[in-house]
Amino acid sequence: MPRFALKIDYDGTPFQGWQRQAAGQPSVQQAVEDALARLEPGPHTIAAAGRTDAGVHGTGQVATVDLARDWDPFRLSEALNFHLKPAPVAVLAAVRVADDFHARFSAIERRYLFRLVARRAPVTHDKGRVWQVLNPLDTDAMRAGATHLIGLHDFTTFRSSICQAKSPIKTLDEISISEHPYPGGAEYRFALRARSFLHNQVRSIVGTLERVGAGAWPPEQVKQALEARNRAACGPVCPPQGLYLSGVGYPVDPFA
Amino acid sequence: MPRFALKIDYDGTPFQGWQRQAAGQPSVQQAVEDALARLEPGPHTIAAAGRTDAGVHGTGQVATVDLARDWDPFRLSEALNFHLKPAPVAVLAAVRVADDFHARFSAIERRYLFRLVARRAPVTHDKGRVWQVLNPLDTDAMRAGATHLIGLHDFTTFRSSICQAKSPIKTLDEISISEHPYPGGAEYRFALRARSFLHNQVRSIVGTLERVGAGAWPPEQVKQALEARNRAACGPVCPPQGLYLSGVGYPVDPFA
Repeated sequence: MPRFALKIDYDGTPFQGWQRQAAGQPSVQQAVEDALARLEPGPHTIAAAGRTDAGVHGTGQVATVDLARDWDPFRLSEALNFHLKPAPVAVLAAVRVADDFHARFSAIERRYLFRLVARRAPVTHDKGRVWQVLNPLDTDAMRAGATHLIGLHDFTTFRSSICQAKSPIKTLDEISISEHPYPGGAEYRFALRARSFLHNQVRSIVGTLERVGAGAWPPEQVKQALEARNRAACGPVCPPQGLYLSGVGYPVDPFA
Repeated sequence: MPRFALKIDYDGTPFQGWQRQAAGQPSVQQAVEDALARLEPGPHTIAAAGRTDAGVHGTGQVATVDLARDWDPFRLSEALNFHLKPAPVAVLAAVRVADDFHARFSAIERRYLFRLVARRAPVTHDKGRVWQVLNPLDTDAMRAGATHLIGLHDFTTFRSSICQAKSPIKTLDEISISEHPYPGGAEYRFALRARSFLHNQVRSIVGTLERVGAGAWPPEQVKQALEARNRAACGPVCPPQGLYLSGVGYPVDPFA
């Protein structure tokens, strides 16, 4: 059966996360599989690079699926988008890939974006799409805190207690923090990049760095928290709605 | 009575525009006036710098209101935001202004932003917040077309047939067009600035420039359309959901 890779963009708000749930619980995976079933009799099971939690968004999720028909990739993406409506899920691109390409196991990099808005007035346009705090943050302090996390570390402090990864040791390749104008306040964007992440790792890191930016933690406390290898040393885990799976890297980009 | 100026941010999606409507028709003005009535017995009538149409958003609308009490401006904005919930309307700032300051008549500049996204797949995160077209646009061609509109002109071609302005002659000070990365496509942002605008002027201009960017119109046709002084020579008027009233200028910025 010909295998296809799909690049998928979604607003996570109405979903219980990427992964298929019990009947009646909406998931992004289910939405895509239902659209596939309109094209070819199912059931279909798609494999994704990242299983995002409830409320987390995607702008560059990648999933693979085996189909009976050798679809023209452009027509496949158009047909899927037609059947996905009105769910806030869209196929940005579809490509034919080799049978040994797997969205999850072939991936060598995941990229996440976290959007944090600091302003007093409640957010309007970006409700459900950013995490809001009330007071401005110190970007340089957050950057100083973040440097302690770059590289190969035991991230036990920054993983959820229900994380199923075999090892807490990961290499974090990048945390870039940029500041942007925002009506009535400021927006901080955190770009994180690694081969793979532990469960809740990004939200644990951003929640901790926010404490640094607010002046509640000195930047060096991030190092102490990391070295404690103790979940209790972590800052507050921030909410899911600011988080976006923005891209997945492969040895050769199938969408290039 | 002490007069206050409010800087207001709103998602225009659920409203029939800024201006108060018949009973049962939601408007942004009504939402703010209702919140004011929770603080001081009404009725309150607020005056705004720009009366945005149904579906049009604000990030920097300015309105003035006279109140009985000499409110601390920060507490006034906090109390209004409390009572505005859950409407997607927020007061970004409140300031005490002189009795002869009027949000509309004192304004010497209006700034609008128009967000246009070009991609095949339906937009997800920004539904209701951008105008979507399917094919990429030529930014340089749109810029070339826009230059014909800068300065003092008779904008009859670019005004709605129901426009109530006495004269179609306006000075357009700026049209800046920038291109931004967007998942699965590209975003084009149009920033327009003038002392005042005619009804539907921004949407008529952006709709016309989109035709230029798509290659359907040569840039010089914008000049011919302008010189025709004929509504029929305008390109298609684009939909409201990409439009934002982003700022209002005064001889002295009351919020500075």
